[in-house]
Amino acid sequence: MANPSLLILAGDGIGPEVMDEVKRVIGWFGDKRDLNFDVSEDLVGGAAYDAHGVPLHDDTMAKAQEVDAVLLGAVGGPKYDDLDFSVKPERGLLRLRKEMDLFANLRPAQCFDALADFSSLKKDVVAGLDIMIVRELTSGVYFGEPRGIHIEDNMRVGVNTQRYTEAEIERAARAAFDLAMKRGKKVCSMEKANVMESGILWRDVVTEVHADYPEVELSHMYADNGAMQLVRAPKQFDVILTDNLFGDILSDCAAMLTGSLGMLPSASLGLPMANGRPKAMYEPVHGSAPDITGQGKANPIACILSFAMALRYSFDEGAEADRLEAAIEKVLADGARTGDLMGPEGGTPLSTTQMGDVILAAL
Amino acid sequence: MANPSLLILAGDGIGPEVMDEVKRVIGWFGDKRDLNFDVSEDLVGGAAYDAHGVPLHDDTMAKAQEVDAVLLGAVGGPKYDDLDFSVKPERGLLRLRKEMDLFANLRPAQCFDALADFSSLKKDVVAGLDIMIVRELTSGVYFGEPRGIHIEDNMRVGVNTQRYTEAEIERAARAAFDLAMKRGKKVCSMEKANVMESGILWRDVVTEVHADYPEVELSHMYADNGAMQLVRAPKQFDVILTDNLFGDILSDCAAMLTGSLGMLPSASLGLPMANGRPKAMYEPVHGSAPDITGQGKANPIACILSFAMALRYSFDEGAEADRLEAAIEKVLADGARTGDLMGPEGGTPLSTTQMGDVILAAL
Ligand SMILES: CC(C)[C@H](C(=O)O)[C@@H](O)C(=O)O
Ligand SMILES: CC(C)[C@H](C(=O)O)[C@@H](O)C(=O)O
Repeated sequence: MANPSLLILAGDGIGPEVMDEVKRVIGWFGDKRDLNFDVSEDLVGGAAYDAHGVPLHDDTMAKAQEVDAVLLGAVGGPKYDDLDFSVKPERGLLRLRKEMDLFANLRPAQCFDALADFSSLKKDVVAGLDIMIVRELTSGVYFGEPRGIHIEDNMRVGVNTQRYTEAEIERAARAAFDLAMKRGKKVCSMEKANVMESGILWRDVVTEVHADYPEVELSHMYADNGAMQLVRAPKQFDVILTDNLFGDILSDCAAMLTGSLGMLPSASLGLPMANGRPKAMYEPVHGSAPDITGQGKANPIACILSFAMALRYSFDEGAEADRLEAAIEKVLADGARTGDLMGPEGGTPLSTTQMGDVILAAL
Repeated sequence: MANPSLLILAGDGIGPEVMDEVKRVIGWFGDKRDLNFDVSEDLVGGAAYDAHGVPLHDDTMAKAQEVDAVLLGAVGGPKYDDLDFSVKPERGLLRLRKEMDLFANLRPAQCFDALADFSSLKKDVVAGLDIMIVRELTSGVYFGEPRGIHIEDNMRVGVNTQRYTEAEIERAARAAFDLAMKRGKKVCSMEKANVMESGILWRDVVTEVHADYPEVELSHMYADNGAMQLVRAPKQFDVILTDNLFGDILSDCAAMLTGSLGMLPSASLGLPMANGRPKAMYEPVHGSAPDITGQGKANPIACILSFAMALRYSFDEGAEADRLEAAIEKVLADGARTGDLMGPEGGTPLSTTQMGDVILAAL
């Protein structure tokens, strides 16, 4: 059988630097575990704009549709801030999500024991935290029409449309319930059904889908209260299910609870392909970090953990994913730290490559 | 000259309980400071629904338009959860905001020294915190048309519309810049201009208005990053300006940083009336707290501090507002605590009325 295929889109800023370490990890799995991948690479975001004048070339889009999984680094940077909306780096990422139909964005917010002190929250509030946020990723106000800026009575008016069909809500809900069955069997769904009709539909459909998952405990929460509860007592949650825009904000809020954005991976999953694997893209939650780009300071762990998610969700290699995650936990417990993980006590941080080195050694 | 007029809408749940203490405080200002108000009372939310079948009677709406300021308690409760969207308690509140055109919602997130330990965040991250969130309150996805649930291809579809005109953005921005001039002279505006055109217009208009406030430092932040930064390092902010929906979530997130939701007031301000005072409604940030309703456990401080905001913003009685706030700081420093403010060390909490007593005594 042919090797599974990976398309690497390292993107902008620290994307290429952290992806270099992922490539070494991929190489290790080939050498040592006989897990070989056909790896190709291409451009996305500002890098694609510089080369082609668009943040994602059609050929790249076509390749992404064909591979077994896409690994993405990061997009964006100040250089591209003044570009027209239609060609901003973000549009490349959004096009991938939409055209690959990656409706289920899985964002674990996990607090590593060795790093619990890094959180701005009290240690007992976050130690052992293990939440999974399932964010709908292909619809809602990110993609709804009509949208744009137009003139009305001589005045500019900005419009976006929040729009959800019951099918879109249903498939995101199933992803959340399926995940909950493998975890703590609790789903909390968040919307603003008290002010938005789209939130009422969301709540109704989630409640209907729940009938197929009698073992899972379902609760509903208004998204504003959700933000509050995440700050107050995040460990009350197991799986959080929410829409594209609320998910954007709530998952960043949850990510920051862990104190270490450089540690958090994500998976964006779509429908099964002919080979049974889901359409999939994996990316770190952190951005392109222009302030530290090119200095060898970036933490590659979020990107490496994204590859671990690929092993688990795309290639059914849960044991290998566990192995990789365990290696990372070990190096952290041993005190390996990139600059973003340095406490007030100081010390010399590892470079991006050195962090890659110790992870490979631990493997 | 006639006394200024106040309309009290105590609403549901703990609303009437906490408002009772506000009435005593109002009485004190009449007796001791010769500051007299003509106070009337009426129903809102579930209480109005029970009496009239609507969450806000037209007569109440008319009264609210005529008085100098409305004091609102809280709306909602499980009893009303299954009501039709159009008559839910929240609709009463939203109608007041919309018809009084209360476009600037001021939500201070302040951490009281005596309570810094209550936050789930580390003490040094929140001690001394003093942020003012200015949330646009009469537009955006809360009110945009089209909206509703309809059937398309045999499927339910939920739609809401995010819509902002430049005039709506401009007046909210002016409110934020005016406030910043009296505070730390820093405004951070939050939107999702990277994915929403309405966010691009927001950013553009705020930047244009900024030209009239050269002394104020303006920055822009994506709302997801804003949620993150609020959790990571909230003291970096002075005034945060944002739209109705982002403001709902971000202000609740900010509120929870202080650790004591029972402490946080808000003011919703509109255009000046004939007498020069702004249309205004004041309400605590906390909700109706059905779980503790009728037990005398509620913390009246948020509601009393909302009256202090009324003194400051509606009646130009800043010194009297300071006096009231100082009395509250004093009782907290002396250890007065309602149940929501009890630490793990325990002790006997004050009842709602007892907290009112000690505040009156401190005055
Ligand atoms: C970069 C941006 C378009 C994106 C989003 O808003 O979805 C990011 O914030 C994310 O959460 O992945
Ligand atoms: C009660 C509800 C309608 C309201 C809102 O969403 O604005 C509340 O959450 C608030 O923030 O005042």
